[in-house]
Amino acid sequence: MTKHTIILQPSGRRGQVEEGKSVREAARELGVEIESICAENATCGKCMVLVEEGRFERYNIDSKRENLSPVGASEEAYLKRRPKLLQSKGWEIGQVRLSCQAKIRGDVLINVPEESRGNKQIIRKSARQREIEIKPSIRKYLVKMSPPNLERPIADWERLAKGLETSMGLIRRGEENLPRWSDLKIDYACLRTLSQTLRDANWDVTVSVWQDKEVIQVQSGYVEDSYGAAVDIGSTTIALYLSDLRTGEVLAAESEMNPQIVYGEDIMSRIQYTIEHEDGLAKLHKSVIDTLNKLLKQAVKTANMQSNETSGLDTDENSARPTRPAGITLNDILEMVLVGNSTMHHLLLNLPPKDLGRAPFVPAIHHSVDVKARELGLQINPSANIHVLPTIASFIGADTSGVILAEEPHKQEENWLIIDVGTNAELVLGNSKRLVCTSTPTGPALEGAHVEYGMRAAPGAMERVVIDEKTLEPKYKVIGVDGWNTDHAEFKGLVKGICGSAIIDAVAEIFRTGIIDSRGRFKRGLESNRIREGASGWEYVIAWEQETSIGRDIPITQQDVRQIQLAKAALFVAARTLLKRSNLQSPDKIILAGGFGSYIDKEKAMLIGLIPDCPLENVYAVGNAAGDGARIALLNIEKRREIETVTRRVERFELPTDPEFQNQYMLATSLPHMSEPFPHIAHLIPNRKADPLAEKFMTK
Amino acid sequence: MTKHTIILQPSGRRGQVEEGKSVREAARELGVEIESICAENATCGKCMVLVEEGRFERYNIDSKRENLSPVGASEEAYLKRRPKLLQSKGWEIGQVRLSCQAKIRGDVLINVPEESRGNKQIIRKSARQREIEIKPSIRKYLVKMSPPNLERPIADWERLAKGLETSMGLIRRGEENLPRWSDLKIDYACLRTLSQTLRDANWDVTVSVWQDKEVIQVQSGYVEDSYGAAVDIGSTTIALYLSDLRTGEVLAAESEMNPQIVYGEDIMSRIQYTIEHEDGLAKLHKSVIDTLNKLLKQAVKTANMQSNETSGLDTDENSARPTRPAGITLNDILEMVLVGNSTMHHLLLNLPPKDLGRAPFVPAIHHSVDVKARELGLQINPSANIHVLPTIASFIGADTSGVILAEEPHKQEENWLIIDVGTNAELVLGNSKRLVCTSTPTGPALEGAHVEYGMRAAPGAMERVVIDEKTLEPKYKVIGVDGWNTDHAEFKGLVKGICGSAIIDAVAEIFRTGIIDSRGRFKRGLESNRIREGASGWEYVIAWEQETSIGRDIPITQQDVRQIQLAKAALFVAARTLLKRSNLQSPDKIILAGGFGSYIDKEKAMLIGLIPDCPLENVYAVGNAAGDGARIALLNIEKRREIETVTRRVERFELPTDPEFQNQYMLATSLPHMSEPFPHIAHLIPNRKADPLAEKFMTK
Repeated sequence: MTKHTIILQPSGRRGQVEEGKSVREAARELGVEIESICAENATCGKCMVLVEEGRFERYNIDSKRENLSPVGASEEAYLKRRPKLLQSKGWEIGQVRLSCQAKIRGDVLINVPEESRGNKQIIRKSARQREIEIKPSIRKYLVKMSPPNLERPIADWERLAKGLETSMGLIRRGEENLPRWSDLKIDYACLRTLSQTLRDANWDVTVSVWQDKEVIQVQSGYVEDSYGAAVDIGSTTIALYLSDLRTGEVLAAESEMNPQIVYGEDIMSRIQYTIEHEDGLAKLHKSVIDTLNKLLKQAVKTANMQSNETSGLDTDENSARPTRPAGITLNDILEMVLVGNSTMHHLLLNLPPKDLGRAPFVPAIHHSVDVKARELGLQINPSANIHVLPTIASFIGADTSGVILAEEPHKQEENWLIIDVGTNAELVLGNSKRLVCTSTPTGPALEGAHVEYGMRAAPGAMERVVIDEKTLEPKYKVIGVDGWNTDHAEFKGLVKGICGSAIIDAVAEIFRTGIIDSRGRFKRGLESNRIREGASGWEYVIAWEQETSIGRDIPITQQDVRQIQLAKAALFVAARTLLKRSNLQSPDKIILAGGFGSYIDKEKAMLIGLIPDCPLENVYAVGNAAGDGARIALLNIEKRREIETVTRRVERFELPTDPEFQNQYMLATSLPHMSEPFPHIAHLIPNRKADPLAEKFMTK
Repeated sequence: MTKHTIILQPSGRRGQVEEGKSVREAARELGVEIESICAENATCGKCMVLVEEGRFERYNIDSKRENLSPVGASEEAYLKRRPKLLQSKGWEIGQVRLSCQAKIRGDVLINVPEESRGNKQIIRKSARQREIEIKPSIRKYLVKMSPPNLERPIADWERLAKGLETSMGLIRRGEENLPRWSDLKIDYACLRTLSQTLRDANWDVTVSVWQDKEVIQVQSGYVEDSYGAAVDIGSTTIALYLSDLRTGEVLAAESEMNPQIVYGEDIMSRIQYTIEHEDGLAKLHKSVIDTLNKLLKQAVKTANMQSNETSGLDTDENSARPTRPAGITLNDILEMVLVGNSTMHHLLLNLPPKDLGRAPFVPAIHHSVDVKARELGLQINPSANIHVLPTIASFIGADTSGVILAEEPHKQEENWLIIDVGTNAELVLGNSKRLVCTSTPTGPALEGAHVEYGMRAAPGAMERVVIDEKTLEPKYKVIGVDGWNTDHAEFKGLVKGICGSAIIDAVAEIFRTGIIDSRGRFKRGLESNRIREGASGWEYVIAWEQETSIGRDIPITQQDVRQIQLAKAALFVAARTLLKRSNLQSPDKIILAGGFGSYIDKEKAMLIGLIPDCPLENVYAVGNAAGDGARIALLNIEKRREIETVTRRVERFELPTDPEFQNQYMLATSLPHMSEPFPHIAHLIPNRKADPLAEKFMTK
């Protein structure tokens, strides 16, 4: 029986699938649910997927459209009925297929768009409510002018600028340093349409001024609101928040997988791609710009639809445009603030990221960058400013600047340790006197990848695990199911895998209950059928076959434990290094940033030594602080100056240059740590004893 | 016999030509010589012309390539041998024809490129030597950096900026207000290539800083010179001067006809074109940008060739590229300063000129404009700044700002009257206390157009005329011929027409010698066969048929005198209005700007009342002062600030709003003036008497 490789993006699921199966069937086998409500009759269109053509080196496949069965009559009929939909998404017939119809005939890489995913991913990056003082870079002024006449034929711009000076003076009476009209500038793109706008508006306009110095938009009549977008460009997810710049209200929060993922899942492979391909940088840059443009369009649509709903107007969900005549347009978006790690920062700005990935690891620029939207091809108002927060180092990027801006360690008396965990972790430690930072690769294990049954946080994923220390029996919680599994009389076919928080729970629990020792090794001779020697070594079964939807037992394995040990050791050593450099034994507070931090059990995390010891009540999870920082900078111009200054005085430590690093790293793989007391969770540690043979600690 | 209309650009010559004639023959009939050295054998290629396709409303013709005979074998053979030449000019086979081969079969508009013109036009706009203090907006600094290392992984930009701060401090020791590194910016386009440049240069670079604040170029190693271009965009001619920004030396002066001429010869018809055609503005804008790009390329080529010649290197005149390996490149041009009337200004900047041409006649902007080269599509360094001088009014543009900057009336104790004569005349009057200005259409008569045998200043054109008051016999000088016609024993077939300076001479001389009266009317009964009633009224024959190359007598006609009367009246009234507004009887000095002013006889000009009365020794001709102003602003940043301030306080008077205008205008058509004494040329005025019937003065 012939089999072909199928890769599913953005999940990254891959596998061998029999020839002739439909893409939808194949996806289900690989654990990816694709929507369908027409019983695979090619009529509902909910199962649309995209075939990505090209040679994908990392998967060693050539993906071609011809590797799927040709578009049949009913499929073609469906697609031809939806030209507007395809057009609004920028998809072409041939690339987009109904996954219930397309049969596999060769290797393919398939992109499952958000709207087709059966189990919608929970985007943990959501804008949390946060008090932000609103001092936007853009202010609006109503300017009423007398039209020019033969006696006073003053040019349009000077007439506007003089009127603007008067308006600014009236509205901001008493403020110092208000600009004189002769010091005001007008953006070139805005100047090009000025004469027409003034006449169309009958000399009665609302003027948007950027940073009290540059006119960037002139609108007819009185207009109150202006809009901006804050963006967090993650390596995996791009999240965009459309905000009202006057009220600070988030009108839409949109997110998409970062499309750069097809050029490399991790940062280093994307950098490598730009080095190896002449058009690599151009492609990666374009892919992020295209996605931002898509998210901007979606956000405007969402904002207008919500506005319609509240105003009781009818909307057509299938139409590509809002039905409201006077909604927000892309042209009304007057500023964007973006954060992202240094590689995302460089790719966004079309700067070669080569030197981020090779010693001595330097970015092209630390300072924040201001550039016009039109220079980047962002399809908002062409005169809009794009502000990218400053970078701190090659591996500590504008995202960390966002985190610092949001959490404000630089304003504290106490010493705070902020940890932003992703595939890389960035750590910042300090207070108002001194801030030190570092970063460390943690590997993907903490996010549920490279763990045998690991998966992203999505319905069907185990998210909590507790083991009874007497019976060694587990109970667990599953995303999308209420309560514990043991609360249900029958619990069948619901579990798909283990997500990050449950992996940490599981390792902590098998350690706490003595199933593994402090070196992470499975103990022999314990009386439980859940502990057994599997195909790839010892393992502890959390869910039996019948409880799962994949028809197999779901265990945590010796290999999984090792992955977690390596990840937590890297993180711990980074934290310990910063503490040592600051002459501190432990931080006063620990702040976990990023979606990951919001879901883990902090006691369990400390028990395995993922974070240093600290009173548990002083450990906080703050969610997507990087995105929050972008929103803060969008809404408050003074905060941009503040973070510029703060980032310039953050001291960086590169771990590999630390001579003790390897040694520390070996010690830190033990649970919770070979040579640290961990007083706040000491009561949970079984049979604690020091092991003098630290060097021989790691077993292969 | 079938005849077709042929229009020749840029001369504007037009006429009906028999079918079957070659374009070259037809051109000669119309007074346009086209080069040829191969006896029309299609081998020398000197007679190449371009067929401009399209509907030309003002000439009422449809010009098509098919209206010429097809390209024959020998012509095709020639053109195919020259792909490089055609490519370098951007011409395609089909558009370019050998005018000795192409036969007329229908209406055509033909462009005769500069290189094919038999009688090369004397471009009067040439850069005159002028003392300019050099304070360019761009300064270069050598910066040697230590490369980054793991201990100090500072980003590329911050490393450069810190090095630059040090260099600036060393080089400009003691100067105040030198920027701190943290206040320096880098242009986005320059940032994009920074990392690669620094590494290629091994951290040893020359940095070009614009206005002490923005890095716009980083070059490997030590580089001394940078380059800029000053441009005068005339309605008819675009003149570009490539300068070394360090020495001020003009490395190349290039000029081209303004290609917008095909959309309308005068300003108003170009404005009209942008109103009537949706893509009109885009076309006119693109045509000037394309020409600037062409001139820039030519200037770079000229500069490199001259440099080769002085350095003794071999050059290939036919090659499109300089052979010198390390010459100036377009990328080395770091700034441009442009002047032009308000319409040229708007078309350059892609601003709709509609409101320049309709009441109340306002420009989009008075202030100078700074915009990046890449925003306008100018193919110099993308980070280069394009500076356009300020405009004063709808009909007093950036060209007048250039004239003021060059002549500096605002620094004088005396009252100066500056007159820049073209199709329109701009007048500025005043001193350090007050400057007033106005403009007036003078019509094309003063440039030799709309005069029966008028022509541009080119070989074959009469440029001086003197008439003996006793015999009423003339003598004249012809461009390209030494001495007076009467100095030659035989003087045959040399005259083609009368250029502007000779037209003024002729009118002044027939007035001085009593052939016409002060109202411009030919007197009856004078004894000279040169005075006669021709087909279109009375005329005075300056050159007999046999003296000309056109086979006809060349007279000055009653109509011609009327044209000059109308033009000079407009100019005189404008000057008188300004004098009156300034409570002055006459100016202390008169400055004639523009090519025209350099060639006219100032005594004759005063005799016909073209300029107000003034001691003749106080009348100066200064050539292309607008272009000089552009060069001054290019080389001296302080001058830009100066002209910005000065133009803001120039008072404008629009003549049509002056109630006395019509009355004054009638009086001013008389020679030299009905009611002004003209003491400085009074001795030349025959039978002077006042005419009380001013209202009835003009005869039809």
